[in-house]
Amino acid sequence: MFCYNHKLRVRYGETDKMGVVYHGIYPLYYEEARTEMLRSVGLSYAELERQGVMMPVREMHVKYTAPAHYDDLLTVCVEIRQMPGARAVFHHRIQNQEGKLLNEAELTLVFVSMATGSPCRAPQAFTDVLKPYFD
Amino acid sequence: MFCYNHKLRVRYGETDKMGVVYHGIYPLYYEEARTEMLRSVGLSYAELERQGVMMPVREMHVKYTAPAHYDDLLTVCVEIRQMPGARAVFHHRIQNQEGKLLNEAELTLVFVSMATGSPCRAPQAFTDVLKPYFD
Amino acid sequence: MFCYNHKLRVRYGETDKMGVVYHGIYPLYYEEARTEMLRSVGLSYAELERQGVMMPVREMHVKYTAPAHYDDLLTVCVEIRQMPGARAVFHHRIQNQEGKLLNEAELTLVFVSMATGSPCRAPQAFTDVLKPYFD
Amino acid sequence: MFCYNHKLRVRYGETDKMGVVYHGIYPLYYEEARTEMLRSVGLSYAELERQGVMMPVREMHVKYTAPAHYDDLLTVCVEIRQMPGARAVFHHRIQNQEGKLLNEAELTLVFVSMATGSPCRAPQAFTDVLKPYFD
Repeated sequence: MFCYNHKLRVRYGETDKMGVVYHGIYPLYYEEARTEMLRSVGLSYAELERQGVMMPVREMHVKYTAPAHYDDLLTVCVEIRQMPGARAVFHHRIQNQEGKLLNEAELTLVFVSMATGSPCRAPQAFTDVLKPYFD
Repeated sequence: MFCYNHKLRVRYGETDKMGVVYHGIYPLYYEEARTEMLRSVGLSYAELERQGVMMPVREMHVKYTAPAHYDDLLTVCVEIRQMPGARAVFHHRIQNQEGKLLNEAELTLVFVSMATGSPCRAPQAFTDVLKPYFD
Repeated sequence: MFCYNHKLRVRYGETDKMGVVYHGIYPLYYEEARTEMLRSVGLSYAELERQGVMMPVREMHVKYTAPAHYDDLLTVCVEIRQMPGARAVFHHRIQNQEGKLLNEAELTLVFVSMATGSPCRAPQAFTDVLKPYFD
Repeated sequence: MFCYNHKLRVRYGETDKMGVVYHGIYPLYYEEARTEMLRSVGLSYAELERQGVMMPVREMHVKYTAPAHYDDLLTVCVEIRQMPGARAVFHHRIQNQEGKLLNEAELTLVFVSMATGSPCRAPQAFTDVLKPYFD
């Protein structure tokens, strides 16, 4: 299993008239955390795309427990529980600065060749780096 | 069962560098469709909030099948399959102008009193209007 | 001079905790109105890009007078006061359903060849359609 | 004169189909930088609102020179050139990791009492902290 915690601040423009973060903003937070998680192990999603592989989201399931507010310092946890194959499943959990759980999400991403538009295996560099965490 | 179809256009700023609509944009499309669905039966979500009841999203589950592109004319279907009680479940389905299914979603919203912050029953006006569809 | 009015509804997710539309959302409204203005004269910005020309924004100047609220039905006016050459200047004005002026903006866009990344003249089809309005 | 530099990463969802950051995203970057600038001198915009004063944007003028890309590490500079009175003018300048200037902006914000909705003077705590920079 692989875990990573990323911290980010809530922007004013990410709140809505309820005074809390709009439910449709969290996918951006999850995405930012996945990018930083990859960077933490020496991988770059930007580089992955330059090499012709992209990872679109196929499924997203979010359970909202409590709201985040403007200027909250959130911790976005990223977990990969199984070695990614043709698809990679990411579990996210967001907590605020008091440690309160705000929401949990499960996102399934697939590897797609940008040249063919078809699903492909995870690139070697990607699996090489992650493998040790799942042995 | 209650069904409603709402049409909307994809904005340029809603796409990402993959050239398609960012997966985190669809919650805005579902929201717009729910608002129009309510308007179609004489209800106003804005009015609901003025009367002190809000409907935060508690759960969202999206399955992405195919991407939407800039300037696509999408049809966002809203379905309520069961008479809302303390919670209301909305099923969404988005198709493009060729009738191709792009994604499906299930969102659970709850009624919350803005005065107390606690869950409450759906307002009478709300249930009165929807009831006939579930008899 | 060429004028066009486009109507759109404010989404919930476009408001912020002040209870009004976030100032950074209006560029999306202006963009939507420009797309529809072009469509109204038989032009398609999507088609323009498929033919290899894009129109990035080079300058944007907005004056905010009054706020828009959730569910407001806005009228976004688009004006082209001078025949576009290498650049096209769009004047926007947004009013709410009571006719109240909310904000005014001036955006300068340039024509850029997607192949070379360099500025180019407006495509023939584009100028042919607009010319009659400026004679 | 008061200057502050804030660093932030471009998210994937902030790009558009041109492959670069959408022009309407930068207001969010400027806002984030202003919040951090205030924090750097011991002020909190969130706290300002809790005390009943908000700062809506009245005018925004942006000049775009070059685009930002996904995963770019941007430096957003905030400058206050004159001691804020009833209004505060912020100059922003964004550079990428190579030091290239991407855009410049001038935003005018006003102090407004949330109780009355009317303009007000900057709160004492606010002016006390900034004054030394303008003597």
